Amino acid sequence: MMNFNIKPTENHSLHESAINKINNLTKPKGSLGRLEELALQVCMIQETTEPKLRKPHNILFAADHGIVEEWVSLSPKEITWQQISNFIHGGAGINFLCRQHGFKFVIVDSGVDYDLPKDKGIIDRKINRGTRNFLYGDAMTENEMEKCLEYGAECVTNAYNEGCNIVSFGEMGIGNTSASSLWMTCLTNIPLRECVGAGSGLDKAGIEHKYNILKQALDNFKGENTVRNIMKRFGGYEMVMAVGGMLRAAELRMIILVDGFIMTNCMLAASLIQSEVKDYAIFCHVGDESGHKLLLDYMNAKPLLSLSLRLGEGSGAVCAFPIIDSAVRMINEMDTFSNASITKYF
Amino acid sequence: MMNFNIKPTENHSLHESAINKINNLTKPKGSLGRLEELALQVCMIQETTEPKLRKPHNILFAADHGIVEEWVSLSPKEITWQQISNFIHGGAGINFLCRQHGFKFVIVDSGVDYDLPKDKGIIDRKINRGTRNFLYGDAMTENEMEKCLEYGAECVTNAYNEGCNIVSFGEMGIGNTSASSLWMTCLTNIPLRECVGAGSGLDKAGIEHKYNILKQALDNFKGENTVRNIMKRFGGYEMVMAVGGMLRAAELRMIILVDGFIMTNCMLAASLIQSEVKDYAIFCHVGDESGHKLLLDYMNAKPLLSLSLRLGEGSGAVCAFPIIDSAVRMINEMDTFSNASITKYF
Repeated sequence: MMNFNIKPTENHSLHESAINKINNLTKPKGSLGRLEELALQVCMIQETTEPKLRKPHNILFAADHGIVEEWVSLSPKEITWQQISNFIHGGAGINFLCRQHGFKFVIVDSGVDYDLPKDKGIIDRKINRGTRNFLYGDAMTENEMEKCLEYGAECVTNAYNEGCNIVSFGEMGIGNTSASSLWMTCLTNIPLRECVGAGSGLDKAGIEHKYNILKQALDNFKGENTVRNIMKRFGGYEMVMAVGGMLRAAELRMIILVDGFIMTNCMLAASLIQSEVKDYAIFCHVGDESGHKLLLDYMNAKPLLSLSLRLGEGSGAVCAFPIIDSAVRMINEMDTFSNASITKYF
Repeated sequence: MMNFNIKPTENHSLHESAINKINNLTKPKGSLGRLEELALQVCMIQETTEPKLRKPHNILFAADHGIVEEWVSLSPKEITWQQISNFIHGGAGINFLCRQHGFKFVIVDSGVDYDLPKDKGIIDRKINRGTRNFLYGDAMTENEMEKCLEYGAECVTNAYNEGCNIVSFGEMGIGNTSASSLWMTCLTNIPLRECVGAGSGLDKAGIEHKYNILKQALDNFKGENTVRNIMKRFGGYEMVMAVGGMLRAAELRMIILVDGFIMTNCMLAASLIQSEVKDYAIFCHVGDESGHKLLLDYMNAKPLLSLSLRLGEGSGAVCAFPIIDSAVRMINEMDTFSNASITKYF
């Protein structure tokens, strides 16, 4: 398996300097709450008390899922490629968010079941035309899984080489809440029932059918619950690429913006491969997909936003960017009590 | 009393068109959650399905409070003017947030107990050098209260005349969480105990002392709990100006960004003067000051952010601006299903 060499952000003297700096800014101690915590985390990631955010990227991995033939999703499979076409034309949810916050938007074909145009800037890392149906067997081969990790990492290296130090991951893949629910139940032991939700909008009967299919898939799986086994068994390609991307981002000391239910599962998997990756993760929002809040609690993660988003695409992560930007501006731009000749009042 | 003529935003056919437009954007129905609700509200306020945000202002009212002589605050009174000096030099929390989100920052001396410089752009509407100590009597006179409403309204009219259609209100005034706790208990009947918190950082004993002083002040007040009586009795000048500003902003169909505990009390008071003002209000964050969450619940308000802020100055409101901007971009920039040739999947 691909090796990642992630360093923990631990550094006692830097930690102390950063906290001192934050506590001497002209505000009651602690009064900027989460901004202060974020500023500290970013200092630790970047190994400086003068952090900077540079060239944010939203890297979106897209792929199809064989399980969709079991009617687990409200949306037909064709939505995957149609939305990519919408991304290219700039009309999707993630597009206006990337424009608003100055993100470069990178689209990666990880395994879409469609011949996407070659001349539109989509990065072609198509592993296959969708994963296999995991109801009866593995979604992908060992070799495909390795390639996914490698390609995901490569995409992040490319962003890094363009000067990026903060990266959000997005996904597009009809069926991927199904795969995510299985990752979650297998990797946390939280009962499947609590990990299954409405996806793009199933009603109660639809959720029940989805649950029954996923329950069968789970029963049919006889392997051990190791990360490798789970990723291989349930896919999808876009999710494993995101795992590879997250691990590489941490290796390169980049800030990782974690989006919704699917990407939180990818961070969970990444942290089971190398736990230090979590030092680099900012959990950006808790979405409406059932199970997401549970999973965040399981990971001791406090999301920044709670706006009932359930779009995917990296939308919740990009939406939270200005808050991280605020934290960085706070530590760089606020005056200190002594400079400003203000009575220190704590 | 000054008259405000606020129209409700109700408009059946516009409501229907806006909802139709939002539901036809290329995303699963409802999947952009709060952004969809905000977009709808902004459409109703601006009477269009193509809303725009123009020249945001953060208007900060500053004043001192006589009650501070009872040691109800951790911060000494001098912090009020010292922070204003910090605002002028650009080194405070609210400064970097205004710069980040393109807000014009307007500072109004509503009644600071200090001779502020005349040449730094501070708007001089000083009513008095701080309110009177409300432990034994009225914080301000009837005439002062009227002037506050008028001046607050005037500041908003000035912003409007500069092309502003979205306004945040901030405050600076050592002692104003004390006044706010009394507004809250008198105007909602929630017991005083639940309305009193740490302010800029009191410890348990400090909060107990603050509670005892406020309890005495409450017991000494023999009037009826009308808004007018409460504003006059407990002050402060900066808070009543914010009430006037909010009412005028709604009259001019501007979006009102509501900040923390103190400004939420001002919106409560404004809504008791004319309830339609709430149609124009966006509750931007729930802060750490005890009582704020209770008050928001009482007002059926769902705050956008929960970042443990307790700085005041309008910081939580300005911090939430990009989310409202996202909502407006969503409705203007996203493509519709028919335009994008995507199968509508709900």
